[in-house]
Amino acid sequence: MSILVVGSVAYDTVETPHETRERQLGGSASFFSLAASHFVPVRAVGVVGDDFRHEDLDLLSSRGVDVTGVTRASGDTFHWSGRYHDDMIERDTLSTELGVFQDFQPVLPRGWETTPYLFLANIHPALQGVVCDSLVAPRLVVLDTMNLWIETTRDELSAVLRRVDVLLLNDGEARMLSGRAGLAEAAAAIREMGPGRVVIKKGEHGALYFGPDSMLAVPAVLLPEVVDPTGAGDTFAGGFVGHLAAAGADRLSGESVFRQAMLSGTAMASFCPQAFSVECLCNLTDADIEARVARLREMMTP
Amino acid sequence: MSILVVGSVAYDTVETPHETRERQLGGSASFFSLAASHFVPVRAVGVVGDDFRHEDLDLLSSRGVDVTGVTRASGDTFHWSGRYHDDMIERDTLSTELGVFQDFQPVLPRGWETTPYLFLANIHPALQGVVCDSLVAPRLVVLDTMNLWIETTRDELSAVLRRVDVLLLNDGEARMLSGRAGLAEAAAAIREMGPGRVVIKKGEHGALYFGPDSMLAVPAVLLPEVVDPTGAGDTFAGGFVGHLAAAGADRLSGESVFRQAMLSGTAMASFCPQAFSVECLCNLTDADIEARVARLREMMTP
Repeated sequence: MSILVVGSVAYDTVETPHETRERQLGGSASFFSLAASHFVPVRAVGVVGDDFRHEDLDLLSSRGVDVTGVTRASGDTFHWSGRYHDDMIERDTLSTELGVFQDFQPVLPRGWETTPYLFLANIHPALQGVVCDSLVAPRLVVLDTMNLWIETTRDELSAVLRRVDVLLLNDGEARMLSGRAGLAEAAAAIREMGPGRVVIKKGEHGALYFGPDSMLAVPAVLLPEVVDPTGAGDTFAGGFVGHLAAAGADRLSGESVFRQAMLSGTAMASFCPQAFSVECLCNLTDADIEARVARLREMMTP
Repeated sequence: MSILVVGSVAYDTVETPHETRERQLGGSASFFSLAASHFVPVRAVGVVGDDFRHEDLDLLSSRGVDVTGVTRASGDTFHWSGRYHDDMIERDTLSTELGVFQDFQPVLPRGWETTPYLFLANIHPALQGVVCDSLVAPRLVVLDTMNLWIETTRDELSAVLRRVDVLLLNDGEARMLSGRAGLAEAAAAIREMGPGRVVIKKGEHGALYFGPDSMLAVPAVLLPEVVDPTGAGDTFAGGFVGHLAAAGADRLSGESVFRQAMLSGTAMASFCPQAFSVECLCNLTDADIEARVARLREMMTP
């Protein structure tokens, strides 16, 4: 069953202590799609500018991502620049040029409104709400957000959260949204806001799942080298939602499939930092993914 | 089978955003002993000053800690003062008054040299080496250290590491000691230095075990409130070594018992921050500990 993703398709300029890469393919919808497409077909909705390279759209298409919903507008593609510190964890944003993304209005190609799975990547919550309205009885709606929206558009975010099944966010954002320091208490408070399930991402420290009947802590896979961690959170989301869609899960499914999906998300996220941009997501085999899930299980079994 | 611990018995003055507690019982040997004594009898070697309260020694004794090896010297007890930030993770050391600990020379009471388990808490590595020499064929030697010794007494530390079975240290210290950023690579490099097994503590993010044939990631138990995290690392060590001693493990034991010991260490460490000083370690029942280990297993099982 396919997944509809709405988010950014962008160019990233990434500086690390070792190397700088300019205008490489990035954006939440790109990372998500290339991860999720290892599990099920993906439909992407976004916008790019005149400068967007045909080969980048072709790359997405060749990996099972339907880019009919990625429109081309007059202007520049969303361009993010950032510099990683020596620890390859902390980073400074050097510039954010929204370009055509500034006026992005998601429009679903005909027939896409019945897509069973919806991933609302990190965009303005009012737009997330519009997309939610467009869909007819989705089996599962998963949403990502960020500190900017928590701080500046709280009401719109609250409105869309009431209609979401799973919220993904990082630990700092969970504390900000809930006003609670303890992550279990933060998750409980967020579940009161609407999402029945909450996933708290902790970067190199793994991720936590909180559902109606259980919680799960998944460690991150230890990597020998971090080349470029940009997009790891959206890659996690791609593996997580991809697993749920492949399993045919819906909001009434038991905890088990969501707990297993955490392993797929974590495994997929672990490939992302091993190369720049989306490189590591493109040539993965099912065997690579299964091997990494198996390694994760071993790391977790006392 | 009993454990010999050599380390500090101290008074801590702890400031948190909510409360300040002055001269409460602390020190690595105190936290370790009170945790490990839930598993096996413990023998403590340390030094205190004229000011040390009888009731604090009595507390240790009443919990199965033999304090015959804690000598009283003329002067003040080691006194550490620190202030926690709002996150209750970061802290600033306000003062470190070594007092009688400055001239500490561990002396083992007669008969203690055959104690089967040895925990060398974080003291000068030359002293750790002296204690190592005093013991006759211990089954297992576990050592903790810190950035100070890695930076200033590298040669002495290297010498004692060659005689150690398990090294406990935190993630920053592991990177500093090994010169490697990746924690798996850091652990592999440290294992080349002597310890067959390495445990990397990551505070609120849990702990990692690296043995000859496997690795294990254990998450920290999520706590609703952190009152005072001082001593959690030594409390982890107490649960970890306590479990190994209760199981009769030695350096030739398979991975399984070490992996299980990680759960006991993590469970014990999770009690420590729930109250000031050693309060939470004193009235625990076996059922409390078992319940927390069970909760941890559930958190780790996908």
